[in-house]
Amino acid sequence: MMPHEDPIKDLTDALRRLPGVGEKTAQRFAYAIIAMSARDARGIAQAIAQVKDTIKICSHCFNFSTSDPCPICASPKRDHSIICVLEDPRDLMAMEKSGSFGGVYHILGGLLSPISGVGPDDLRIDELKNRTASGVVKEIIIATNPTKEGEVTAHYIQERLSGTGVRITRIAEGVPAGGDIEYFDSQTLTAALTNRREL
Amino acid sequence: MMPHEDPIKDLTDALRRLPGVGEKTAQRFAYAIIAMSARDARGIAQAIAQVKDTIKICSHCFNFSTSDPCPICASPKRDHSIICVLEDPRDLMAMEKSGSFGGVYHILGGLLSPISGVGPDDLRIDELKNRTASGVVKEIIIATNPTKEGEVTAHYIQERLSGTGVRITRIAEGVPAGGDIEYFDSQTLTAALTNRREL
Repeated sequence: MMPHEDPIKDLTDALRRLPGVGEKTAQRFAYAIIAMSARDARGIAQAIAQVKDTIKICSHCFNFSTSDPCPICASPKRDHSIICVLEDPRDLMAMEKSGSFGGVYHILGGLLSPISGVGPDDLRIDELKNRTASGVVKEIIIATNPTKEGEVTAHYIQERLSGTGVRITRIAEGVPAGGDIEYFDSQTLTAALTNRREL
Repeated sequence: MMPHEDPIKDLTDALRRLPGVGEKTAQRFAYAIIAMSARDARGIAQAIAQVKDTIKICSHCFNFSTSDPCPICASPKRDHSIICVLEDPRDLMAMEKSGSFGGVYHILGGLLSPISGVGPDDLRIDELKNRTASGVVKEIIIATNPTKEGEVTAHYIQERLSGTGVRITRIAEGVPAGGDIEYFDSQTLTAALTNRREL
């Protein structure tokens, strides 16, 4: 009574590993892949393999990159005295898209969240503090989400860095409360960077 | 100012080929793949390659299968005198899951739809008629969706097969109008098969 051999079920099961993808969606994806040209389907498979082969984590800013240091950390055109602190690489992608920031970044890898059990040791806060030791860094802009967790994380970082002599700023209220950095448009992000305030 | 080399963008672009996946979802999938274990990510890539390498279309019923004829068409345990006609392979999967049908299948590859420009030549209706020529087939159960397109297709097939001496039936009104075969539970599909009526 088996209508299919294993490959379609294997593919459906594998696709369920993607976030928010249940059985029906995975099945829809699987049949779409079967219906695709071999070239397009193999393109997806190769892009996955390529990403796993080439993507590393930059040891300076912790962004994903094919090189270490990443092109931003390695660039002499970027202002290495200003670090923009972000929750994750997707926020960085949105920031770069806005084209309004010429400094370098620091990816925290999350936000403080007692409910989710995310504490300071789970984030790259020590690594951020270490970056201030060289004396090159003059300002740290904390650009975590304008949510409760983002604000708590921002204040925690401010406390941890007090006494380092580095100017600590927070992106301005240009970003609407309760939102997610990742989804804001370039204009909103530009305004938020321009109107940043002292913490 | 490029935060990423090409691999992540390549993967995001490739994932947008999946149905209903826009840029943000593709990006979310891409980062989830990066965060996955290499084993899980490669599992997806391999499952895609495996499907493209092994999946053929059965020359009898036109279902996807690793063999031709497919296991159902090749099985002596199935009743080859009854053909259940379906829109696509996902409907077949739902039918098999219900465990209520012991015959064989015929996949149309779509439904008649003047709006979408799908005419009789786009569906495997000639192929269905040819299958009745051997004299083995006694009954054809049309199990297209209980939608306008499904009903129009059912009546068109009935007309095309009139005079072949084969009994043409339609799944019963056990299936709620406006629905989609693919999403019904086993009990509903079983009732619909049991209560099938003459066309």
